[in-house]
Formats: sequence, C-alpha cells, structure tokens
Amino acid sequence: MAAALKADLKTFAAHGCYGMSVITALTAQNTTGVQDVFPVPPGFVEEQIKSVLDDIEVGAIKTGMLYDADNAKAVVKALSGHFAGMGIPALVCDPVCVSTSGHTLLHPDAVEVVIKELFPLAALVTPNKSEAELLLRYSERKVETEITSLETMLDAAGELLTLGSQAVLLKGGHVTVTLADLASFSDQHSDVRVIRDGLLGENMEILQVEKSSSASDRVVVDVLREKTGDTTVLARPHISTRSTHGTGCTLSAAIASELARGTSMAQAVRAASVYTHLGIEDAPGLGHGNGPLNHLHSLRMACVPAKSPSNPYPLTKMLIESTTAAWKHFVEHEFVRLLGQGVLPAKCFAYFIKQDYIYLKYYARAHGLLAAKSTSYPEIASATQIILNILTEIDTHKTMSAEFGISIEDLENAEEGIETTGYGGYLLTMGLEGDATKLLMAVLACLLGYGEAGLWLKKQATVKGSGIVLEGNPFRRWIEDYSGEAYQEAIRVGLERIEACAEADPPSPARLKDWLNVWKRCTELEAGFWDAAMKFGS
Amino acid sequence: MAAALKADLKTFAAHGCYGMSVITALTAQNTTGVQDVFPVPPGFVEEQIKSVLDDIEVGAIKTGMLYDADNAKAVVKALSGHFAGMGIPALVCDPVCVSTSGHTLLHPDAVEVVIKELFPLAALVTPNKSEAELLLRYSERKVETEITSLETMLDAAGELLTLGSQAVLLKGGHVTVTLADLASFSDQHSDVRVIRDGLLGENMEILQVEKSSSASDRVVVDVLREKTGDTTVLARPHISTRSTHGTGCTLSAAIASELARGTSMAQAVRAASVYTHLGIEDAPGLGHGNGPLNHLHSLRMACVPAKSPSNPYPLTKMLIESTTAAWKHFVEHEFVRLLGQGVLPAKCFAYFIKQDYIYLKYYARAHGLLAAKSTSYPEIASATQIILNILTEIDTHKTMSAEFGISIEDLENAEEGIETTGYGGYLLTMGLEGDATKLLMAVLACLLGYGEAGLWLKKQATVKGSGIVLEGNPFRRWIEDYSGEAYQEAIRVGLERIEACAEADPPSPARLKDWLNVWKRCTELEAGFWDAAMKFGS
Repeated sequence: MAAALKADLKTFAAHGCYGMSVITALTAQNTTGVQDVFPVPPGFVEEQIKSVLDDIEVGAIKTGMLYDADNAKAVVKALSGHFAGMGIPALVCDPVCVSTSGHTLLHPDAVEVVIKELFPLAALVTPNKSEAELLLRYSERKVETEITSLETMLDAAGELLTLGSQAVLLKGGHVTVTLADLASFSDQHSDVRVIRDGLLGENMEILQVEKSSSASDRVVVDVLREKTGDTTVLARPHISTRSTHGTGCTLSAAIASELARGTSMAQAVRAASVYTHLGIEDAPGLGHGNGPLNHLHSLRMACVPAKSPSNPYPLTKMLIESTTAAWKHFVEHEFVRLLGQGVLPAKCFAYFIKQDYIYLKYYARAHGLLAAKSTSYPEIASATQIILNILTEIDTHKTMSAEFGISIEDLENAEEGIETTGYGGYLLTMGLEGDATKLLMAVLACLLGYGEAGLWLKKQATVKGSGIVLEGNPFRRWIEDYSGEAYQEAIRVGLERIEACAEADPPSPARLKDWLNVWKRCTELEAGFWDAAMKFGS
Repeated sequence: MAAALKADLKTFAAHGCYGMSVITALTAQNTTGVQDVFPVPPGFVEEQIKSVLDDIEVGAIKTGMLYDADNAKAVVKALSGHFAGMGIPALVCDPVCVSTSGHTLLHPDAVEVVIKELFPLAALVTPNKSEAELLLRYSERKVETEITSLETMLDAAGELLTLGSQAVLLKGGHVTVTLADLASFSDQHSDVRVIRDGLLGENMEILQVEKSSSASDRVVVDVLREKTGDTTVLARPHISTRSTHGTGCTLSAAIASELARGTSMAQAVRAASVYTHLGIEDAPGLGHGNGPLNHLHSLRMACVPAKSPSNPYPLTKMLIESTTAAWKHFVEHEFVRLLGQGVLPAKCFAYFIKQDYIYLKYYARAHGLLAAKSTSYPEIASATQIILNILTEIDTHKTMSAEFGISIEDLENAEEGIETTGYGGYLLTMGLEGDATKLLMAVLACLLGYGEAGLWLKKQATVKGSGIVLEGNPFRRWIEDYSGEAYQEAIRVGLERIEACAEADPPSPARLKDWLNVWKRCTELEAGFWDAAMKFGS
C-alpha cells in the first residue's frame, strides 16, 4: 500500500528507527482517492515477513491495510510462527478498513480474522470513529453504537478493549468536541487523565493572539484505554485542513517507533499525537485531494557533516574550503616564501616581529576573555594554557629579535601599526559580540595558519627548485618552531576543541554562515598583517 | 521492490522532495540477499503510474528495478503517453540488473527494451561496472569490454552515451583506483574536470591524522559523461564497509531530487555523491549481510517546533511549560496577590519599589550591552527603545513612590539588596558569557512576568471571591500599567524578537537547554525579588 507505506517509513526514519516493510496489497492511488487495489498472494506476504524477521531484530511492529482474510491470516501465521515461545515485540494494529476517500481496504470476511486472531497479539489497536463502529458491529457481542461525543468515545473504547488487545486508542478526529465539553468531561471523570497538547495552559495570557480562544472552540480528542485500568484523554487544537492523507498510518507508525525505543504506552501515544499534529500543521499542501502531511517537520538539515574516519575535522575542513584562495594567499604569502628562502629583508622581519609582539598582547587578552566566557573548568584551563603558551612565545620573540639586533626596548616601544590595531580590535569585538565559540572561530586562523605555513615551508624545503632551504637559513628557527611538535600539538588541541564545540552544539545555517565570515575575515587580516610587513619593512 | 523503494523515499524526503512510488515487482529480501521476487502485472504498473502522474506535478523521475520486458514496456508506455507532446521531466534511469547479492533483477529480454526505449527518454543513466559491461554487451554494437581502470571507465562511459541518454554516470565502486592513478589520469586529461570530495586539498597539512595519506591509497571514482561534451571525474575516499545495501538507488534518487530542484547535472551528481558517501560512513550497521546506509545522516531533530496558527510563540510556550511551577509561583506570588487585594503592607511595597529602581539600572545596562552585541540597526534600535522605556518607567516609579511618601532622595540613596545584586549581576554575566540571544533570554522573564501578573490580576478582579479589586485599590496604577496596552505591546515586540531569533538561528539541543536554564534561573530570581520585599518590608 504505497501511500501508507511511505508515511510509515518516513515516520520510522524521523524517529531514528529503521523501518522494514511487508506489502500485503498494492494500490493505484493519489490524493483524490484509491483507483484500484492489487492484493499480494498470501504466500508471498509470508515470505516477505520471513525475510524481514530472519535478519534484523525487531523492536516493534505495526500492521496497516491487510485487505482480505487470507492475507490477514498469513500475517497472523507468520508472526505467531516466528515469535512462538519468545513473546512478540510491541504490535500496533491500525485496523485500516476504509480509505479517507471511501474505498474498502478490509474485506468484511477479514474483520473477524483481525478481531479474533490479530487483536489478541496486539499491544495497541488504533481505530477511528467509523472503524470502531464497524469493529464493534462485527464483534461477537454485535454492539451497535454511534460515536458522537467524549462520553460515547469512552464507552466504545472500553468495549473495544474487551476484544483482546492490551490497549485501545480510539481516535476522535471525526467527533465534534469543544473546549467546554472537555472541561465538563474532565470535571466528571476525575480518574481520567486529560492531557492538553498545543493548547495554552495556565499563566499564558500573554501568548493569546487576537480573539481569545473561547469555550466553543473545537478540539480533537483521542481516548486511550489500557488493560491496566488507566484511561487518558489527549486533546489538541482542531486544524482545518485537507492534508490528512496517511494521518492514521503516521500516528500508528509513530507510536510503534516510540514503543520500539522503550517509551511507555501513554507517553508513546502522546508523543506520537504531537508528532502527527505538527506534521499536519506543516503539510506541504500537495495534490488535488487530501494531501500528505510533512513527516520530517521536526528535522532540519545539518550544516556540518559528522566526524568520520575520512573526515576527522569536518568543520575546519569546511572553513578552509570556504576560503581556498584567501587561505592559500595567507599560508603561502610572499613574506613566508622569502622567509623560507632565507632572503626576507631584515627590516621586513623586524617590522613583523615588533607588530607580532604587540598583536600577541591582543591574542592573549582574547583568550582571557575566552576564559571569562567559559562555563567549565576544562574550557577555562584550555584558554589559560594558551595564554601561558603566548607568554612563552614572546620570550622566543625576544630571543629571535636579539639575533636580528632588536632590543627588548625596541619591542616594548614599537609603534602599533594600524593593521595590528584592526586585527586586535576585531578579536576583542568578536569576544564582545558572540559566545565562546564565535571567539574561538576568531582566534583560529592565527593558530592554524602559522602551523600550516610552517609545514608548507618544511615540505617545500624537500622539493627541488622551490628555493626553500633550512640549512643556513637565518629564519630556520621560525620554521622549526611552527612546524615543530609543540606547536603542532597546540594546533591539535585547538582543532579538537573547535570540532567538539560544533559537535556538542551543531550550528544552524545562519550560525555557520556567521562562523565562516569570522574565519574569512581573520584569514584576510592575517594576510594583511604580512602585507604590512612587506610594505613598511622595505 | 522494498529495499530500493525505501532507500528512494527516504532520500527524496531527506532532500525536501515529496516522493511518489510505483511498484513493478515485490521482493522478499533482507541484508543477506533476495529470497524471492514477485512481479506486478504490467497493467497494474500502468495504473499506478497514471494515478501518480494525474494528481501531483512531477519534478523528476527515477526508475529502479523493472524486472521483465513487459513491465519495462509498461513503464515506457505510461510515461510516453502521459508526457506526449509536453516533454518529460528529468528522468534518471538506474539500470538495476543484478542485486548486490547476485539475484537477477532484470530479465535478459528486458535489457533490450531498457536500452532501446527507456534510455532515449533519460536525462541520465547510472550503471555500475557490471551493469555497464552487461549493457554494452547487449547493445547493438555488442561491445565486449572489461572495466578495470579510470581509462576503461572513460571509454565505456563514452560508448554508453551513444545509446541515447543525455548523460551517463558510470559508477566505479568496484574498480580499483589509487590516488596516484587519479593524479596521472588528471595530468593526461586536461579536458576532464576532476573533483575530489572528502579528500584533503591543498594547504591542509594540519588536518592530516596519523599516517599521511599516500599515493597508493584507494579512492572511489565515478565518471560522468554528458552529451554537451563535458566529462567529470568524481573522486572520494574508499570506505571499507558492508553497509552498501541500496547505495545505487540512494545515489540515483539523490540525483533525481537535485535535478527536481533545478540543479545542473554535474552539480546534482556531485551533491548526490557526497550525500551517499556520508550515508555510508554514518550507516547504522544493521543486519547479517550488506546493511543499509543512513539516509537521514544530514538531518537533525529540531528542538523548537515551527510557528503555526495554533502555536504562534513556540519557543516562549516551551520556556513557560518547562518551568510551570516556578512560573506560577512568580506570576501569582503572594506579593502580587496582596497587591491585587490592595492589602500589601506599604513597607513591603516601599522596599520593592526602591529595589526595583536599582534593578532597572542593571536592566537598562543589560540592554546597553545587548545593543553592543547587536549587528543590525533594527536590533540596536530595539535594545535602545527598551532603555528609553525603562527611563520612562523610572519616572512612573518616582511618581508612584511619591504617593507612598518615598522621596526621590530615598530612591537614589536606597541600599542595594543582596537579591538585587544577584539578579543584576546575573543579567550582565549572561551578557558577557553568551551571544545576544542568550542575553535576550535573561531579560525575558522580567518583561513577560510583570505583564502576565498584570493580566492575571485584571482577570482575577472579575472573578467573584478572589478578593482582587481595582476600585479603590492603592496599587491600581501598578495593575493598570502592566496589564495596559503600552506594556502589552512591549511584550508583543519582545516575543516577536525572541521567536525570530529562534527561527533565524534554530538552537541545537544543547543550546536550547542552556536557554531553558537561563529562563528558569531568571524566573526564580524574579520570585526571589518579591520574596525579599515580603521579608524585609514587614
């Protein structure tokens, strides 16, 4: 049954369950109705069930259209056979009898099989008003009833419960009930638990929009009766819509999914009702008749792929790939190349080292701010460790500077370049503007870029004709430092932290876009920093 | 075909497309193989296609297992008939011939029908190695070839392109190709576009983990040849896995989804390859044989339901529902009730009004910080407007205080209560810690709570026996202010803003939890504020 099967499978998937399907009958149908039905031979129904049950352990089962007595018997036989002596997983039986458009989907002679043989295996049976009336009429006691109110729903559900299942959910989508009816029912049945989902509760006056909801407003109620004696009424707002194709299948599939995950019956029914309600509200409005609902309403596209063996740093990879040209311009900057060739003018290096000495003050302060924005000790420790690393790094700067004839006083008294001011200010602004992750995004380009430049030089030094040399290079220490183990380990720690942030708190598309912007801007500010060294140093 | 159909439908859904299905044959199968096949009569295949096409406009079509010549002809006939004279939507033909487990899924006599009648309708044909070899062997030119390398893939794809489709994607999952092969192929074919997805690009040395990927590493390549003359090679890392059940269906369904959304062929194939690759990497590992992939790998559960007519403020409703008891304790606080009854001791009110005068300074500063954290003019304007509102509110405080014999000096010189320090400090800490939305979350309880308390008192004043009165109540102005239009309009603006934040940048579960904590803490701090008034005022 194509429409129902699709609704089932999408519902299972939306609940994180893996659905397996057995087809009892094919339909030629669309939103306007069922044009034709083609039953599958009972033997092949059994074969399908066998294939499915033999391979993967099943957490719950739901049945939909069974079509005729032979197929209903085939399902009972295959299930009873497979689970003989071991107990059947939670079975939700949606006793599909008639399609929304009025097409008979369960032959009269099959109704008895369903009642006598399938219901006793079922954890739950989920008829709507007309299915309940039909089932009661065909039952041994031949109850003739018309379900028109909450009271009659309660009685009918009680009658249905005597037919053998562990619980009955009588769906009231076609029964007119108002908020006032619900309130008076609730007053008269203190033993019945009434759950209002999607309806405003106490102390929510401020959330009322326009005309306040009045007691004559229509609600939809489902009644759940369990063999344990518990009765629950689930109410939600009535929606005027034509998008109800597959609503019943969706609800029963969602209940089965919840049961498979170990949820209790009442909780499973409640969660499934909310899921189905949201799916109807969010329906795409397809087709000329009763259109389908949106089964993935509760799912959003993830922006960052999951970590995997072939992609251990998915966010960082995405950042770099989003700025290929800017990143390459930074990492393979003329400054870096000349430094690698050992021919960078000393004045350029001197300008750079002085500005970097000033910049690292901002960089340390940014990590102080990061510590202030952190809410766990490991995060505070990690930010603090980086400040300690920076304090070590400036000692290296002092030593290296001395080799180039730059005194500590020169470093301390150097005039701050305007690009240093710009970059430093940007870091602290990101720290003011956003959360800890946004600030991490801002400090990342500097951390990663120097490491990548170091590795690039180290690798180029082995490539003939690159001109990059280590031996005798006055800047060798710079290259060794950034390509060395200590710095690369700091990178590893930084990568793990940023990826952990994205994993623990996956960004929305808007947030990811914001991160990409910060990363790009910092990559540009880094390149600008070296541009300045080339310009003002020569 | 159950397994393929499921893969198709989940793939369509994951791409935001609504899939409709036509079943040509049923299978009894699981991850270990296909146990049996039951073909659907050709007439019923046609009927299903008619039902589907007659109702909903179709953006793209894909075919899977066609089983035999009669069903293949039925598909061609129904499609040609329906789209006669109007052009067929993008048709992706996945020429399923043999299952992963070796079961024949396309009878030999059907191959000719597929080639001669279906391929000419197709935008794309997507054979794997063995299907391509079989198709070429059965084609008019009876080409005998063995596909063993990138070069032979390129040639075979070219041959297949002469059979009539607009493009051919030859899938190389079963062809052994290394990174070195790819590099040398790329050097020799400068006219072929080579795309490396999931492989590390230039300047990504820092992202290498453990042993660096070597030239002998295996990659998976697909070759896309188009009638336009364009050729694209798509390479990605090889994954050692058994979870490949339905990989081909998934890929072709993903391509069809992309084409339905108007993506170009090469882009559609690239995106679909990445989607399928991630699905394999994220496979749940089910079954005893070749298990299915995860089709919803790119989807995450949304925490906040979408805005809907019955739920216009979903996030705020969720916040209030998450703290029902604390919220009620705050809104219906003893302080509020006594105030509504006009019997609140003047000393309590005096303590409250002085502390509130101090608190509003923090509240204004928090909105100054909010302005500093805002990145758009409307956000800056909104934060600033609230500061202006507060400045008006303290004028009201001064007037109201005067009525209770509290001078402006008394207000200015009042000693700050420790709960005022706690609450004010919490607001500014949230502003330091998080982004603008987190700060908004912190200022929300105050904004909403006073409005809800005002409305509650106004409503209670109409309830007999509540004791709440407006007439002659010395605190009437307080009640009128917070239940009045101006304040309620400010609430409306605040609600719209917070909901807009959650809609534009939907929170992850971790972020929502953080928001709920902030909301709860502020609700408690609000109640504590009134507790203090009751305690220190009496």
